[in-house]
Amino acid sequence: MALMFALASPAWAAGLADPVVPLLLGLAVVLAAGKVGGWLATRVGQPAVLGELVCGIAIGNLGLLGFHGLEPLKHDTFLQVLSSLGVIVLLFEVGLESTVPQMMRVGPSALLVACLGVVTPFALGWLMGAWLLPEKSQYVHAFLGAVLTATSVGITARVLRDLRESSSDEGKIILGAAVIDDVLGLIILAVVSGIITAADQGLSLSMGSIVWITAKAVGFLAAAIVVGRLLTPHLFRLAARIRVPGVLLITGLVFCFLLSYLAAQVGLAPIVGAFAAGLVLEPVVFEAFEESRQHSLEWFLHPISLFLVPIFFVLTGLRVELASFADPRVLGLAAALTVAAWIGKQACMFGVLQRGVDRLTVGLGMVPRGEVGLIFANIGATLTIAGERVISPSTYAAVVMMVIATTLVTPPALQWSLKRARLRAKRGVA
Amino acid sequence: MALMFALASPAWAAGLADPVVPLLLGLAVVLAAGKVGGWLATRVGQPAVLGELVCGIAIGNLGLLGFHGLEPLKHDTFLQVLSSLGVIVLLFEVGLESTVPQMMRVGPSALLVACLGVVTPFALGWLMGAWLLPEKSQYVHAFLGAVLTATSVGITARVLRDLRESSSDEGKIILGAAVIDDVLGLIILAVVSGIITAADQGLSLSMGSIVWITAKAVGFLAAAIVVGRLLTPHLFRLAARIRVPGVLLITGLVFCFLLSYLAAQVGLAPIVGAFAAGLVLEPVVFEAFEESRQHSLEWFLHPISLFLVPIFFVLTGLRVELASFADPRVLGLAAALTVAAWIGKQACMFGVLQRGVDRLTVGLGMVPRGEVGLIFANIGATLTIAGERVISPSTYAAVVMMVIATTLVTPPALQWSLKRARLRAKRGVA
Repeated sequence: MALMFALASPAWAAGLADPVVPLLLGLAVVLAAGKVGGWLATRVGQPAVLGELVCGIAIGNLGLLGFHGLEPLKHDTFLQVLSSLGVIVLLFEVGLESTVPQMMRVGPSALLVACLGVVTPFALGWLMGAWLLPEKSQYVHAFLGAVLTATSVGITARVLRDLRESSSDEGKIILGAAVIDDVLGLIILAVVSGIITAADQGLSLSMGSIVWITAKAVGFLAAAIVVGRLLTPHLFRLAARIRVPGVLLITGLVFCFLLSYLAAQVGLAPIVGAFAAGLVLEPVVFEAFEESRQHSLEWFLHPISLFLVPIFFVLTGLRVELASFADPRVLGLAAALTVAAWIGKQACMFGVLQRGVDRLTVGLGMVPRGEVGLIFANIGATLTIAGERVISPSTYAAVVMMVIATTLVTPPALQWSLKRARLRAKRGVA
Repeated sequence: MALMFALASPAWAAGLADPVVPLLLGLAVVLAAGKVGGWLATRVGQPAVLGELVCGIAIGNLGLLGFHGLEPLKHDTFLQVLSSLGVIVLLFEVGLESTVPQMMRVGPSALLVACLGVVTPFALGWLMGAWLLPEKSQYVHAFLGAVLTATSVGITARVLRDLRESSSDEGKIILGAAVIDDVLGLIILAVVSGIITAADQGLSLSMGSIVWITAKAVGFLAAAIVVGRLLTPHLFRLAARIRVPGVLLITGLVFCFLLSYLAAQVGLAPIVGAFAAGLVLEPVVFEAFEESRQHSLEWFLHPISLFLVPIFFVLTGLRVELASFADPRVLGLAAALTVAAWIGKQACMFGVLQRGVDRLTVGLGMVPRGEVGLIFANIGATLTIAGERVISPSTYAAVVMMVIATTLVTPPALQWSLKRARLRAKRGVA
């Protein structure tokens, strides 16, 4: 009997254990939830991504109903990695829809939008902190401002792509500004955490480190765009000599993954690298590939993105803990931060220099904070000032709620404002 | 200065750490190596998969030349998971190319091929063990026989698909026999390890556990085929009501992942579940999907398999440690095991009942042991008999070499024999 147990037990099969096995079940659940959620959302006229998020929240909070079977999905690093690959592929696809000259044309608007979209939320977040958390130090208030600066472009990119608006002027300004925001956010984060660390240790902040962080990020983007545009035609002509099926797809993916990796190495988000990779690849680069006569790189990427992209959005929803909404004080801070985050990014609309661009859309598109806001809050949770955490657990919960609110409100808001703008433009023409 | 270091150091950016970042570099290297290797192999008239394996071996052994930068790739569990997903998608694709009635037609041949392909290598492996390791117990000899029984169908499936021969009679017999082999191998492994565990503890083997393991595996396959064929038309008609882009792909993948997961739960390899999933999905099931009017499920799967499948084969090569070939005694045992493994599976050709089927191809297609042989060896390494490991480190090294040899020899051998068979058939017709 003991032997029978030994044979039938998982320990016996330890040699057979493949880390992919638990992932298979998780993938099946997440993919099915994503499709059902996306379908339900489109049936009520909302973008599919909203349904994926909400369905993720629903299955992630089944614990409230006493079912805890899906809890492990929240902490599954393999699912997380697949979801990160998904958002990288998404931004690569979105980048492919634009070219560098097109982005340069909206460059001044994007830069102004980005700056306004960093300065205003920073100031508003600081004020909200000073108002609602008067007992905390001004460093905490400043850090709250910093948390509100970043733009997480995943949601907006997805909505724009689903509505085929990625290469519209609004789309290009939002995407360009989001990339610049990532650089600005990185600098602000470095400065604010640097000042706090210095103050806590009684040191003064070294300017050199700030300059170095800035130089790396700006240098990466400049090099990716300038060197990338000069080199990619030669690189891709070389790769096109490899005549095996799928070489166009693999060359594109290798380029995308390398730039995402390099972006992360200089402290930027990997998706900024993926977007830059898509941006610098001009259609002419692909002509060298025999395969491109039949199928474009986008054609090859489409099923991969159908597979991987929803994982990111379902997982984002899955991690929302509805139970944390119970504390009224946290809820108050969360509401204030959400208002600051929302109003703060609406200042972006004044940065649009082009005529005929829907300013409201640009402002709404910049709202989501997504994982970038959480990354900032995580760093704040590791910093201390006078023995206290800069971001306390209850402040962290409020930041999470702000991230959820700004993320969930964006898909319907953006869809509404874009439809309204196109309708107006049509009427204007007619 | 200390602060500057603190800001620039990775510890500062810990909050930014995303587990996908190191994977991005690894993916870029593995994908590029796979394409270059595949291209070089096709240029010398060999199947692409051989080039992927050899290129993997090359970059995995750069340590011999003093370059250790790529060592972490060998132990990267994220890459391993992606590679497992790759081989699952591959077997799903291959399964889709056949239907259950077609498999049933070759059923008797496949069953006979599978039985001969298990009994002969088992006997030969036992004899080789008794001859070359006379100092070890007969349990060790028996276990060596068991290690030689399994067929790893990944390589063969890939070569068959690349040559568009998956749905040929030879292809169907090999694939069917490989699935049956997985069941038979599982039973033999359970029996042999059960006997060894019992002998080591002075117990006798419980028949109940063997019957239970067998029943689970056979029950899974029978249920997958019978219930799967009855239920899938209804299930897929239900899923087809969800009218969002990609629902055909996601429904197919969810079904494939679920069956792979269930296969693993009953102790079979996940790829057996993936193959069964593809097998039971008949073309009629897809007609309910609006999308299927434009694109088939295979169309959607193609880019995903172009992306994921080579990762499996490059990684298989990457894990080959050429340094272990240095020991002459290990090399001798490895050569003997390889010969036993090779000759043992050639007995399969006598199991083919159909006329007009190339028997040599069937025998060659059953040769590769791949990861299944390694899984068996790993289990042997955890068993002890009289205080000694059943599979000692040097025996393990020999098993690894046998796996490499049977894996590497298959692509060119199979391509040669299939071309020869088709040429003969053509001449016979003419």
